[in-house]
Amino acid sequence: MTAVRSPAPTAVLHPSATLAKFASELKYSDIPESVRMRCEDLFLDTMASILAGSSARAVQAMAKYTALMGPSEGKSEDFVNRRMTNPFFAAMVNAAAAHVVEQDDVHNGSVFHPAAVVFPPALAVAQAIGASGEEFITASVVGYEVGIRVGEFLGRSHYKIFHTTGTAGTVAAAVTVGRLLKLNPEQMLNAIGSAGTQASGLWEFLRDAADSKQLHTAHAASTGLSSAYLAKEGFTGARRILEGVQGMAAGMSTDADPAKLTDRLGVRWALPETSFKYHASCRHTHPAADALQHAMKTHGLKAGDISRVVTHVHQGAIDVLGPVVDPQTVHQSKFSMGTVLALIALRNSADLAGFDQALKDGQVAAFRDKVTMELDEEVDTAYPQRWIGKVTVTTKDGRNLAGRVDEPKGDPGNTLSRPEIEDKALRLGTYEGNATEAQVKKLIQTVWGISKQPVMGRVLAD
Amino acid sequence: MTAVRSPAPTAVLHPSATLAKFASELKYSDIPESVRMRCEDLFLDTMASILAGSSARAVQAMAKYTALMGPSEGKSEDFVNRRMTNPFFAAMVNAAAAHVVEQDDVHNGSVFHPAAVVFPPALAVAQAIGASGEEFITASVVGYEVGIRVGEFLGRSHYKIFHTTGTAGTVAAAVTVGRLLKLNPEQMLNAIGSAGTQASGLWEFLRDAADSKQLHTAHAASTGLSSAYLAKEGFTGARRILEGVQGMAAGMSTDADPAKLTDRLGVRWALPETSFKYHASCRHTHPAADALQHAMKTHGLKAGDISRVVTHVHQGAIDVLGPVVDPQTVHQSKFSMGTVLALIALRNSADLAGFDQALKDGQVAAFRDKVTMELDEEVDTAYPQRWIGKVTVTTKDGRNLAGRVDEPKGDPGNTLSRPEIEDKALRLGTYEGNATEAQVKKLIQTVWGISKQPVMGRVLAD
Repeated sequence: MTAVRSPAPTAVLHPSATLAKFASELKYSDIPESVRMRCEDLFLDTMASILAGSSARAVQAMAKYTALMGPSEGKSEDFVNRRMTNPFFAAMVNAAAAHVVEQDDVHNGSVFHPAAVVFPPALAVAQAIGASGEEFITASVVGYEVGIRVGEFLGRSHYKIFHTTGTAGTVAAAVTVGRLLKLNPEQMLNAIGSAGTQASGLWEFLRDAADSKQLHTAHAASTGLSSAYLAKEGFTGARRILEGVQGMAAGMSTDADPAKLTDRLGVRWALPETSFKYHASCRHTHPAADALQHAMKTHGLKAGDISRVVTHVHQGAIDVLGPVVDPQTVHQSKFSMGTVLALIALRNSADLAGFDQALKDGQVAAFRDKVTMELDEEVDTAYPQRWIGKVTVTTKDGRNLAGRVDEPKGDPGNTLSRPEIEDKALRLGTYEGNATEAQVKKLIQTVWGISKQPVMGRVLAD
Repeated sequence: MTAVRSPAPTAVLHPSATLAKFASELKYSDIPESVRMRCEDLFLDTMASILAGSSARAVQAMAKYTALMGPSEGKSEDFVNRRMTNPFFAAMVNAAAAHVVEQDDVHNGSVFHPAAVVFPPALAVAQAIGASGEEFITASVVGYEVGIRVGEFLGRSHYKIFHTTGTAGTVAAAVTVGRLLKLNPEQMLNAIGSAGTQASGLWEFLRDAADSKQLHTAHAASTGLSSAYLAKEGFTGARRILEGVQGMAAGMSTDADPAKLTDRLGVRWALPETSFKYHASCRHTHPAADALQHAMKTHGLKAGDISRVVTHVHQGAIDVLGPVVDPQTVHQSKFSMGTVLALIALRNSADLAGFDQALKDGQVAAFRDKVTMELDEEVDTAYPQRWIGKVTVTTKDGRNLAGRVDEPKGDPGNTLSRPEIEDKALRLGTYEGNATEAQVKKLIQTVWGISKQPVMGRVLAD
């Protein structure tokens, strides 16, 4: 503790100001080593998602725009156009790529995907300003800790209409970049204010299988980045954009809890609460997928033995997945509970390659129609702290068999080891030939050594 | 009418699709000459606002960011850095400048400021692609017609928390740019979808006199622009982002009326319903300012004769102006009913120069404290279609005198003539020496001849 007087406006710290102070002042040495290591794990996982997503149609469309509008030189890597550009457009297009194959991480309690909105701006800005690896890790941890708490704060009512990764993600990106730009607490609060008033993202696109999910991460990453740079230049923002009477929660939530914004800040680490995605689908499908896998394994069932699957789910799953009754695109099929469970039943895996085939496969369509969702009180009550998977499988010979998992694969209590993470990175990175095995192996080595980098340079070899 | 078959997805046109079709297909020759002329008037008025605002601290802060991040070459004029750049960053910084001196236009029924979000992206893109003056006017009219209807649709509940100019403005900017890029109706619907899911802007900043109002127009202009370019590249958006069950109104309004989205489209012209701002303050203060002026003139009062002023206002005025009880900045003072009425009483004018002096003036502060707002049923019921001004002035000799205007100066029924618009442009354009009188006079000539331009070039001479 120093005797320096706090500036008057933050003398009494409301939640937004407390977050700003934390984001500004967190040191690398304050972060437990296990959290730093997990941050590296998540960064590798994100890079793999970016590479896997870089060939997707929607991402390519955005890349054409950023190639047209962004400069063709700079210090920030654009992994889609495979060129150097400025941090704004690099963050935009890389964030779009990170989220498209539905393999990036998720934080259960906030229903928020931090990686896609934290690492793209963190990397783009760290490269642009020549930050160290330690600064990159510190800024990324700041983004996770703040973004997750904002997501938890906005609550379940928010998530019914708004894509939390877009909204909370804008704030997460702003504090990440703000930390790299060494914003002081006042400037950081301004960055949060500017980010919060630009936060957006609506679920309406799901109904049409439109590309907005990628736009939401791209928008969050790039406008969050702008918010931090603007704060550095003296541009001011609302001081209570999160909890104020005309702020984010007032406009976009009915159950926001300001206490969650600062919940055990610096003591409880939210970053390692994040789950890796094991299946290549919307996270809301994972508990049921694992429960079905459990039931089939326990009872020795094959897909052909099953006449019906009832998934017992939380309301959020019904809200997000319910509209997708007849998936028309690969991306939409990842939001189809029936398709996901069909792949599990038929292939024992809902991976990227499986989804690429699913739409053309009559067996998948037939199984899909056997799957329904029902709201389950136990599952709904536990959610979003715990994502319990429960299914009832009815067999053709008339048995009703229960399948259950208390923690799906990839969750903190059932997590992936470094070899499993490397294996996933190799599969994702080489998907559709987007990177070579040698490139991904080189990337893995770079990421495992990143905290030792004095100056962040390129992470993907030519 | 042609016999061409509509594409299947828009065969039944819901409101968003109807708007998209209109935005895509409106022709210059479809627009009445009076509307085209008024569009030129509004463009000049906007350019003057941009020049007046270009020296403001917040705008200069944003300009430093866009100078850092945007390219230093291109075909689009950045009127703040006074350089050429790309359309994205030109639209961003010019839109910020357009809104800061509170002299840009307003549409009463939608409580929406179209100019600041329509003309900056229209000009930036028209210059970038070499569109004609007719195309520029057509695209701008499209932006007004769509944006105003989206604002009307979102309703009064939306405006309580959200800055409609930021939210509806994003859609307005997208259709404006989409028209210039010659998007077909399907692409235009995608542009609207991408714009709507990025729409944002919260009033929370008012409490802190923060810079977010400029950020909202900058964000709307630039992300709307991106949405249109992305649609051109095949990026898709929700088909019912405005009226869908997880769309803008679902998330951000409780009284949205979808019928307003397509109200007499192509028959009723919303653009000429727009009001010019006469006082250099928030529009919500104008009716009361005019009513006070009326009462003082009618009864021959001087400021020193007055002991109290009660303004009889609509709820929106209380929502927006109510938090501003002790203005600390010039910008905040423009949201202070007491300050505005003090300037009227003391100087018979609430112009830019008046606000520059107001904070230091003890007489202004003393008069400010005599002013209160009270909700008035007649005024509130008429709003937002009509902005009635009503005040009760109590004199030191004990009289209670009523002042009233049914249509404030600058409204369609009490509008400005071209000489008055030119005069306002000269005053604004030369404010703080931001442009010379010769530059503004040249600009005026350029704007009056703009529809004849085969290719849109620069509009501000060096």
